[in-house]
Amino acid sequence: MSFEITQEFYEELIEAIEQENTEKIQKSLHNLRPADISSMMDEMDTEQCIFLIHLLPFEVSAEILSNLDEDTRTEFLRNFRADEIAQWIDYTDSDDAADLLNEMPLKLREEILAHVDFEKAGYITDLLHYEEDSAGGLMAKELIRANVNWTVVQAIDEIRRQAEKVEKIYSLYVVNDRNVLLGRVSLKKIILASDGVRIKDIYDESVISVKTYEDEDDIADLMRKYDLEAVPVVNARQELMGRITIDDIVDVITEKAELDRQLMAGISEDIEEDDSVWTLTRARLPWLIVGMAGGLLGARFIGFFEADLAMLPAMAFFIPLITATGGNVGIQSSSIILQSLATKSSFMRDNYLSRMIKVLLVAIINGLVIGLIVFAFTFVLDISIKLAFTVSAALFFVVLLASFMGTITPLILDKMNINPAVASGPFITTANDLLGLAVYFTIAHFLFGF
Amino acid sequence: MSFEITQEFYEELIEAIEQENTEKIQKSLHNLRPADISSMMDEMDTEQCIFLIHLLPFEVSAEILSNLDEDTRTEFLRNFRADEIAQWIDYTDSDDAADLLNEMPLKLREEILAHVDFEKAGYITDLLHYEEDSAGGLMAKELIRANVNWTVVQAIDEIRRQAEKVEKIYSLYVVNDRNVLLGRVSLKKIILASDGVRIKDIYDESVISVKTYEDEDDIADLMRKYDLEAVPVVNARQELMGRITIDDIVDVITEKAELDRQLMAGISEDIEEDDSVWTLTRARLPWLIVGMAGGLLGARFIGFFEADLAMLPAMAFFIPLITATGGNVGIQSSSIILQSLATKSSFMRDNYLSRMIKVLLVAIINGLVIGLIVFAFTFVLDISIKLAFTVSAALFFVVLLASFMGTITPLILDKMNINPAVASGPFITTANDLLGLAVYFTIAHFLFGF
Repeated sequence: MSFEITQEFYEELIEAIEQENTEKIQKSLHNLRPADISSMMDEMDTEQCIFLIHLLPFEVSAEILSNLDEDTRTEFLRNFRADEIAQWIDYTDSDDAADLLNEMPLKLREEILAHVDFEKAGYITDLLHYEEDSAGGLMAKELIRANVNWTVVQAIDEIRRQAEKVEKIYSLYVVNDRNVLLGRVSLKKIILASDGVRIKDIYDESVISVKTYEDEDDIADLMRKYDLEAVPVVNARQELMGRITIDDIVDVITEKAELDRQLMAGISEDIEEDDSVWTLTRARLPWLIVGMAGGLLGARFIGFFEADLAMLPAMAFFIPLITATGGNVGIQSSSIILQSLATKSSFMRDNYLSRMIKVLLVAIINGLVIGLIVFAFTFVLDISIKLAFTVSAALFFVVLLASFMGTITPLILDKMNINPAVASGPFITTANDLLGLAVYFTIAHFLFGF
Repeated sequence: MSFEITQEFYEELIEAIEQENTEKIQKSLHNLRPADISSMMDEMDTEQCIFLIHLLPFEVSAEILSNLDEDTRTEFLRNFRADEIAQWIDYTDSDDAADLLNEMPLKLREEILAHVDFEKAGYITDLLHYEEDSAGGLMAKELIRANVNWTVVQAIDEIRRQAEKVEKIYSLYVVNDRNVLLGRVSLKKIILASDGVRIKDIYDESVISVKTYEDEDDIADLMRKYDLEAVPVVNARQELMGRITIDDIVDVITEKAELDRQLMAGISEDIEEDDSVWTLTRARLPWLIVGMAGGLLGARFIGFFEADLAMLPAMAFFIPLITATGGNVGIQSSSIILQSLATKSSFMRDNYLSRMIKVLLVAIINGLVIGLIVFAFTFVLDISIKLAFTVSAALFFVVLLASFMGTITPLILDKMNINPAVASGPFITTANDLLGLAVYFTIAHFLFGF
């Protein structure tokens, strides 16, 4: 029952738009959901988007707008007046509307708000205060609030009154006369209760709520842990301010995973493949230059041993082996710590000693295995046994040091409130390259007594 | 209103368990949710877990069991008889119960099922057929089904009948007499409809459903795209088989992100920091050995140029710079493609040509910048201008080649249905190390005409 957009479908739609074949377009779009139309519009140029959007009713096009990529949307909205944009805002949930307005210059934002429905404009203005990645920035104002003294019939009347504005209702949030959150009552309970029953007698006091200033990642952890589909947001006085639904948190989780992956890959901005060449370059160059600086430092360091290399050029053969092993071990180690930081309850985070002992044990085993295999293989390479021993010993110590570095770096970064995923990227590789070279050349220097 | 477990709290609880101070334990656990108790039990030893679980009512302990780590749970359940385990299963949703039984030997599984409530046992047996990562493996049998010919009152009666078994109700799934899924009707609509209204007249036909055999990652994409909190599962005959709720999909998304991160870090099993030293080693060694094999091949390759190195040892200085740059560029490139594969609609995946042109442009800019900076810096290192030129030229080509490799490898793996995240790990680094060495030494060899 779900529909997969094919490239052919997309191309036919584009053709119909170019021919301004309204009938054909409307027929193709008939079975599509707004999110599908958005993903196609992300690939279209602005003129095509504008033509398309005019064929759709406001409630559909408003949802399409919310789903568009930020870049596409900004480009698109540039072609409309404030009062036109306001018409879409009227059909958009307050959280998405606030995100949309946050992308705009202040003047335009004010002009749009002046045209928006009064209640909605108030909601949005409230939300604009909060940082984007806080509970306040994520929440929507639309929710169903039930006074604790109401009867079930009164609650149902309230649902009826708000039904159009609140698309998804999971629970009613129960408040006292001062809007202080007391608990929640599920729709299921409302349906099963007799009309005369009071909210007071059926609501659940143990509701989980978050404060407006809480961070989105913490909220994601909370909702995942307790399997929540929505969570109410309160201010410091426990007053009910809004609610966050799981669909927004799913986006938070996905974006966080992407960000971590990009940091691990040494990309410093949130980029996508279809960003401009310039954006892509800007996001990639910084870490490449860090790696380059490390490489130049390495060159300088090996330079000290030029005389040794002249005497024993075979030493150079194993440089890539040493640096690659250090890099691989370092990234593995930091990735295991990253995982712990991401999933472990914080109450178990501080077992540094037992952690280090285990890291050491794993490193010793890995180091021994790698060292021994390499020792065996170096015979094939026709080098002296002394050099074979040097390489193997260096590898063993590199594995140990890289494990240690890979383990403590994310822990330190986390303590400093820097995203520890940075540590799994070029940073660790570069540091371990240098470390590996130092170990290798130092052992060689002493063993051969140049 | 949510409660954060501190290390002190945990230690006091352990102390109370050791002293068998039942009253103190029950007081501490009073405000906790099952998921909190599970996360503490994951840290306890089995005797402590057993003592604790006996103090809790079955409906609570059943939820705690579902939330435990698989390892902790297996260890824990080993201490109970089939009929004891069956008591928990009675209180567990069918999807979690099937997961739990799937961890057990067949004989024990059958013994447990023999003691489970008849309807629940049937549900579970149905679910055991499906692969764990398919829609069938994820779905629960518990849901509310409404016949299309019913009135709203009949539907509410059905909700009442099932209320205890189905914890979270978002929608009623509408079926005909042959259990074929026709649509859905939200609880909100049920509440707002008058009692005499027929389901036929209010249900929504455009329900999104998935087939039992669909893959969990595809379902995650679908639910994220359309902001669904639950999705019905049908078989090939469109018969309603179960439903998947968003909390399970949030777990799928989180685990997928972890898996990708581990693959990128060169870890070949799903491990956690608190796994045994042996498990950790086994997960890490394979990729380390791949890296090592690459390093040995590199050593063999550089060996061909031993004479060149003897004449110009300074050539060796830049080996780490060359290999590191290749590795970094390769991982960046593959990570950008990974992101596209993860988030882009498939209908836009096949633009290979324009993709490659852009990759090439970004690579040329990055390669030029890196090459020129290094060229400038090599003067500091007191080497010949010829070598400086060699290094810079090699870097430029390494950036180009590594970009190309990093871009096509994940695309090829994806076509072959291998998780493309593998390509962002040691695989790409190793390949690029070798590529870089080949470019560097070949250019040097020809330029210097050894």
